Amino acid sequence: MKKTQAYIQANQQRFLEELLDLLRIPSISADPTYAGDVRRAAEFIANNLRQSGADQVRLEETAGFPVVYGEKMIDPKAPTVLVYGHYDVQPADPLELWESPPFEPVIKDEIIYARGSCDDKGQVFMHVKAFEAMLATNNLPCNIKFMIEGEEEIGSNNLAIFVANNKELLQADVILISDTAIIANDIPSIDVGLRGLSYLEVTVQGPNRDLHSGVYGGAVANPINILCEMIASMHDEFNQITIPGFYEAVQELGATDRAAMAQTPFDLEAYQKDLGIASVHGEKGYSTLERASIRPTLDVNGIWGGYIGEGAKTVLPSLAHAKISMRLVPNQSSEKITQLFTDHFKSIAPKGVKVTVTPHHGGEAYVMPTDTIAYQAASKALAETFGKEPVPTRGGGSIPVPTVFEKELGIKSVLMGFGLDSDAIHSPNEHFGLFNFYKGIETIPHFFKHFYALSTK
Amino acid sequence: MKKTQAYIQANQQRFLEELLDLLRIPSISADPTYAGDVRRAAEFIANNLRQSGADQVRLEETAGFPVVYGEKMIDPKAPTVLVYGHYDVQPADPLELWESPPFEPVIKDEIIYARGSCDDKGQVFMHVKAFEAMLATNNLPCNIKFMIEGEEEIGSNNLAIFVANNKELLQADVILISDTAIIANDIPSIDVGLRGLSYLEVTVQGPNRDLHSGVYGGAVANPINILCEMIASMHDEFNQITIPGFYEAVQELGATDRAAMAQTPFDLEAYQKDLGIASVHGEKGYSTLERASIRPTLDVNGIWGGYIGEGAKTVLPSLAHAKISMRLVPNQSSEKITQLFTDHFKSIAPKGVKVTVTPHHGGEAYVMPTDTIAYQAASKALAETFGKEPVPTRGGGSIPVPTVFEKELGIKSVLMGFGLDSDAIHSPNEHFGLFNFYKGIETIPHFFKHFYALSTK
Repeated sequence: MKKTQAYIQANQQRFLEELLDLLRIPSISADPTYAGDVRRAAEFIANNLRQSGADQVRLEETAGFPVVYGEKMIDPKAPTVLVYGHYDVQPADPLELWESPPFEPVIKDEIIYARGSCDDKGQVFMHVKAFEAMLATNNLPCNIKFMIEGEEEIGSNNLAIFVANNKELLQADVILISDTAIIANDIPSIDVGLRGLSYLEVTVQGPNRDLHSGVYGGAVANPINILCEMIASMHDEFNQITIPGFYEAVQELGATDRAAMAQTPFDLEAYQKDLGIASVHGEKGYSTLERASIRPTLDVNGIWGGYIGEGAKTVLPSLAHAKISMRLVPNQSSEKITQLFTDHFKSIAPKGVKVTVTPHHGGEAYVMPTDTIAYQAASKALAETFGKEPVPTRGGGSIPVPTVFEKELGIKSVLMGFGLDSDAIHSPNEHFGLFNFYKGIETIPHFFKHFYALSTK
Repeated sequence: MKKTQAYIQANQQRFLEELLDLLRIPSISADPTYAGDVRRAAEFIANNLRQSGADQVRLEETAGFPVVYGEKMIDPKAPTVLVYGHYDVQPADPLELWESPPFEPVIKDEIIYARGSCDDKGQVFMHVKAFEAMLATNNLPCNIKFMIEGEEEIGSNNLAIFVANNKELLQADVILISDTAIIANDIPSIDVGLRGLSYLEVTVQGPNRDLHSGVYGGAVANPINILCEMIASMHDEFNQITIPGFYEAVQELGATDRAAMAQTPFDLEAYQKDLGIASVHGEKGYSTLERASIRPTLDVNGIWGGYIGEGAKTVLPSLAHAKISMRLVPNQSSEKITQLFTDHFKSIAPKGVKVTVTPHHGGEAYVMPTDTIAYQAASKALAETFGKEPVPTRGGGSIPVPTVFEKELGIKSVLMGFGLDSDAIHSPNEHFGLFNFYKGIETIPHFFKHFYALSTK
């Protein structure tokens, strides 16, 4: 292990430069304009895997962007670790809020600023480089497979098909994912829960054309006013969601679990200060950590309609639109919730408007038991490199794939992320600390060591 | 009068071609990009007035766009008619809904399609050409002054200052305005009421940056959800506006006036069919015509926030914005309502967000008595050219200037418009019938004739 860590030390600067090259590729999967760049990012990962010593490296084509596959089989009897990650990134808008261009990475105060630096290129690349180091120093104790996809930010639909069609290829003992955060650089943690997601787009149509708000205002349903009313009606005075049946399948945490959760280090004042808000805001009866992890939500992610240019235009518009997503918890079904939302949203539309609802994508919530070998291996690895036992936490984000892997392959995923919640993923000025990047590369070989030891005990 | 009408007949085609040239100038006052074009439209009007025989033609500079002034004083003892109109137009978005480009006028089935064709270039130009015809045929019985401004679509603030500073120059016996509609081409009408306006822009800020909706969703106020709740709360279940004090000054129409109004020809089924709606929608206890004229409103004219591009982005945005306008009725004060809105909107914001409210512009409601010489002259003129007595109606739109003229100059305005409510002003595919354009030019000399006769009786 010393040789491996020395190799990592000696190659730090090159690892970083390779990552910066990857970050320069604007692989925005949501926007068709960037389709060529998304593919370029896949090729970059594949080439880098090849140079790092992986075998069978190839782009597995799907109906969308390809999955990068690669492997190193050292011994058919050794345990196999399947590394999952994604090379696609979120759109970068609003561009004007970036302090440096999103795809021209800069390093300031030991922090890398770029779209994808944390989510997820930086974290995927930790695995590629840890693999290179283990292999180069003859210290890879397990078989390793890589499956790096390009559609995580748009729902991983084609990955699910790829997994279902390649069960043999993807056989493994654990899936290792770094796409989450630790509590702080001095408080390591492992995500043992993820929220699910149901994401929809709605359109409310009033009149068949934009109207003069003086001539028609007051007499014709204004689709923006109506959309606002419909959205507002979806939370009650306790900030609970009003869709009938929405909470039916929600797994309520018991008093013991909630008490354990309340022990997670959390500084409300620092949280509010970091966000520039006077107060948090959420469901009555739950703490901030609970609201952001074990409780489902309904957020408008985008809204538009009418005149949004400079100055004033007295229009009563024909159309109003919103993108709305719900974070789900065990045991809510994404498909069921999408249907409940659609039915409810249509049912509350007044007679003067027409409503359409289009599902974008969804995914299921996930819970990782802490008594597995995989969790124990991750816990020991983090304890070694951080000098402190990691805290099991439940994250609020959604990575649909663990549920897919469990269903299709029967394999559990361990979520050993190295980002921070404050890394502004999905926001302007996304960043990733050099500390976190290097700590990840340092920790991963320890995971392999412990996973091998615990598996063969 | 026969000679005048013959002159109009003979020059129809040239009048139309000149108008089309005017319509080709994209004089959008709300958008600074078009500042040069707005000025070009002013110069076009000035040149055309000069060619038509007006004296003292000049651009009167203001802090914004210039006012075009011109006059023909035939006799100091004759009555003076001041023609008001505007050469600026509304923005043309959404551009993709236009069937032909907004500033490349086309004529289809005897209808001119172009931004400004009805509101108000087409109607202003009727006056310029009627003036040319009267002058050329030695049939101008009154003195005439033109005051054509370039900021009507953005609130006429600089016109109000210009009027206050030029009371002597603008002395007249009546102000004649064609910027409204008739009920139908076979049902002439005169607007005897206009609604006032208060137009504001609001911003709701939640966190100081866009956040990941998974990591923070449920725990932090989402400014779009909050904005929707705030907007929704501004109407109650009877579709009345909930701002405290909003209805305090509203002049309620008596039973007699409402009964008279109920006599106005109106076909609800045709109205709904034209707009493609299954039902009208508005304040309980009032008819559609009442809702759109004698009752105040609150409409969102534009809304935006979060991710509005292709696909899905799971963002909890920092900012949400809306443009909101209220149509006002006698005796609501635009300034007072703007203040009431601002105070109320700020008071209903929850603790987790910051709210800013910026007034755009406003104007007062207006009522024209039907027992004036000016109204009678307009009524007789329309009766002559349409062969039918015009109906007095109350319009829902807002032209702030009549109140300004009454206050500053002590002169009443007569609203003799020739458009149709279905002309799609402020909308894509704005249009103006050739019938209406020529009917206006034909009718205006009759107004001058009757106004002279009634004034000197």
